[in-house]
Amino acid sequence: MKTFRKELWFNVPSRRGFVNITSQIQNCISESYVQEGLVLVNAMHITASVFINDDESGLHHDYDIWLEKIAPHEPVAGYRHNVGEDNADAHMKRQIMGREVVVAITQGELDFGTWEQIFYGEFDGKRKKRVLVKIIGE
Amino acid sequence: MKTFRKELWFNVPSRRGFVNITSQIQNCISESYVQEGLVLVNAMHITASVFINDDESGLHHDYDIWLEKIAPHEPVAGYRHNVGEDNADAHMKRQIMGREVVVAITQGELDFGTWEQIFYGEFDGKRKKRVLVKIIGE
Amino acid sequence: MKTFRKELWFNVPSRRGFVNITSQIQNCISESYVQEGLVLVNAMHITASVFINDDESGLHHDYDIWLEKIAPHEPVAGYRHNVGEDNADAHMKRQIMGREVVVAITQGELDFGTWEQIFYGEFDGKRKKRVLVKIIGE
Repeated sequence: MKTFRKELWFNVPSRRGFVNITSQIQNCISESYVQEGLVLVNAMHITASVFINDDESGLHHDYDIWLEKIAPHEPVAGYRHNVGEDNADAHMKRQIMGREVVVAITQGELDFGTWEQIFYGEFDGKRKKRVLVKIIGE
Repeated sequence: MKTFRKELWFNVPSRRGFVNITSQIQNCISESYVQEGLVLVNAMHITASVFINDDESGLHHDYDIWLEKIAPHEPVAGYRHNVGEDNADAHMKRQIMGREVVVAITQGELDFGTWEQIFYGEFDGKRKKRVLVKIIGE
Repeated sequence: MKTFRKELWFNVPSRRGFVNITSQIQNCISESYVQEGLVLVNAMHITASVFINDDESGLHHDYDIWLEKIAPHEPVAGYRHNVGEDNADAHMKRQIMGREVVVAITQGELDFGTWEQIFYGEFDGKRKKRVLVKIIGE
């Protein structure tokens, strides 16, 4: 069995944003020389997400509006967590979008449907944060 | 290490619906001859879901009403994604219900609690769509 | 390839509650002697969750209020599932928080970000319920 580990770093300049990391994950698979297996990709921060959806700017705008409606940033004082912090909403948004994805590796490639793309979802940005890539297989 | 891969196809006749795929996943495990390992089951489409919950028609009705309340289909023009499309709500519903499940395989069987059942969740149906089954173990 | 399986039992005395199970999962990894691999941790019940977030009581209070707003327990009769049952809301809450987490194991340890902690999330408690831990690796 082969295993591979890598951390990817991101610094999203705004509070919220989505970054397509698909090619970086494919690069990790290539570096790992794993032909058949699984890749786990997870946010290492609890106010961020890794998820799979469409790379379409209109949809990303819709996600942002929708998440803000379900878990609004304001009023900051509306959350008990926000004592010396203002990111309680980000902890909620990350639960909706999810911490991690597990993707099949087949013949050395991400085994994907036509429109599947992997995103880093930032809900409390303007600082350096990490994503973990762990691959197992052979 | 053994690996196994299979695509399952679905064509849900309505826009939304839930299909119990547990026995198909167990059949994949039997075909794979994996006794101990993990099975990943994921929608290959970004407007569909694979999730685990109860096979109870009242609950499925409740899920449908609830998801429609959280991410309504109408008004279609309320989503920026809906330019020549009308499925933005399906991309939201799929995030709530999730893209994938990872299930333990023990002694050649799905290692499940009493009421756990695997479902394909369709939010933009009336066409053929795929689920990926990837098994690793030995 | 090594595999390891263990069930953890919980009996949350209230309807809803969050239990930090991180050290129990680390103990499972130590028992398994797996140095590099993946650990799957999932609720075996469909009204409970396993998720990763912050161990901060204010946030847990916020989660409880937020989930009750998205999927209220009352009115019980508002859910078709609630025929002889009253836990339909728990099936919704569990979808938001998620059934399972998959975590990387590196050098025999949970490969975690600074604030990541694993929780059992109970939404229909006052009875014994189980979490499954399945480890694969070497």
